Amino acid sequence: MLKYNEIATEIEQDILQRNLKQGTKLPKFEELIARYKVSKSTIVKALAILESRGVIYQVQGSGVFVRRRKKYGYINMLENQGFTSDLEEFKITTKVLGVEKIFPTEEIAEYLNCAPGDSLFHVQRIRYINAQALCIEESFFKSSIVPYLNEEIANESIFNYLKSALKLKIGFSDKYLHVIKMKEAESKLLEIETGSPGLFVEELFYLNSGEPFDFSKTTYHHEHSQFFLQSSNLK
Amino acid sequence: MLKYNEIATEIEQDILQRNLKQGTKLPKFEELIARYKVSKSTIVKALAILESRGVIYQVQGSGVFVRRRKKYGYINMLENQGFTSDLEEFKITTKVLGVEKIFPTEEIAEYLNCAPGDSLFHVQRIRYINAQALCIEESFFKSSIVPYLNEEIANESIFNYLKSALKLKIGFSDKYLHVIKMKEAESKLLEIETGSPGLFVEELFYLNSGEPFDFSKTTYHHEHSQFFLQSSNLK
Repeated sequence: MLKYNEIATEIEQDILQRNLKQGTKLPKFEELIARYKVSKSTIVKALAILESRGVIYQVQGSGVFVRRRKKYGYINMLENQGFTSDLEEFKITTKVLGVEKIFPTEEIAEYLNCAPGDSLFHVQRIRYINAQALCIEESFFKSSIVPYLNEEIANESIFNYLKSALKLKIGFSDKYLHVIKMKEAESKLLEIETGSPGLFVEELFYLNSGEPFDFSKTTYHHEHSQFFLQSSNLK
Repeated sequence: MLKYNEIATEIEQDILQRNLKQGTKLPKFEELIARYKVSKSTIVKALAILESRGVIYQVQGSGVFVRRRKKYGYINMLENQGFTSDLEEFKITTKVLGVEKIFPTEEIAEYLNCAPGDSLFHVQRIRYINAQALCIEESFFKSSIVPYLNEEIANESIFNYLKSALKLKIGFSDKYLHVIKMKEAESKLLEIETGSPGLFVEELFYLNSGEPFDFSKTTYHHEHSQFFLQSSNLK
């Protein structure tokens, strides 16, 4: 891990452990430099990361302050590493409906920038939160980047497998969202009446080299999901 | 405007005008420094801003690249300056239902961190996109920060008024979202059947000093709204 990422994580842990409230002023640059024994530019970068994550805000000429923590049980919309870490207070379980190797449709080949003949792993899963249906998820992984995947892996966090076993460096993602009325197939799987509201999310994930590797479509049960999102001062 | 914000805007305009595609490599640091006649640290900051906005991505050791542009007609979820600028290709109109001065409920006083006796401007509006109902919006502005507001102002972009007339510096925001079934009152205003799906968004806006000044509740018509969101490499 890069030094400024490490420092960012340490400062965030410190804020969480001491349960610091919105508006609490953090120590000055000089104190942070002395505490973490790093250069000023490392602290500047660490604070920029924490600002973009919504952990702090910086006020020019006046200092660095703690931001409000998210409400309990909300899923962070900016998290692009799977939501398991957001909901660690809850029991998240998974039912794998299928893992198969397929060839992409034209739409998906375009999203994933596939070469002719490229195959994909197609994974379908239902995720549960405290034994209640949270979402149904269909993902397509480019097999040129993810050469192996099976039901056992899909039963746990696929992203943890990508990072720890395949050593992939996951970069950024694009999300497209709208509200739908659920069709029969998905409402059955989510154990809800056909026509019920749901949040439909399409997401394209990239490695940090900029190469797309995963396209997924997720439908959330409206009664068992809620989301939060913090914009930062950077823009 | 700060120099690095200016440069960020110039680089973004350049990418848009030349319609550069995802993955296009931008010039090297040295070229950007020469082109914009600024220091290296100004370019570093400008690129960090563009990265956090989803305009570019940076690959260590290999360069800076253009990111995919959003799809046509999608509302940027990270935009915290009102959505008028996202939908400039469309005709956004407003019907003001009311502007009144009130005292806050306990819930809203807590969100807005009100002092005893603080009053609020309560604004209710319907927004239309190409003459179709987009959302119904209820906002509460702290009158200690927004001392004047009326129907004429609410008929246009309130945020433009806050920035240009009141010279407020809008900082960041917290959004909380979930999908609902619409009740009778809001479905009537949005001209949709009671019980239809909708996206319900609560948002708390802060000045860049960290002071909260606006709390709003917005319900989106599911057929006339769609959203996008780009996560960045920073986290």
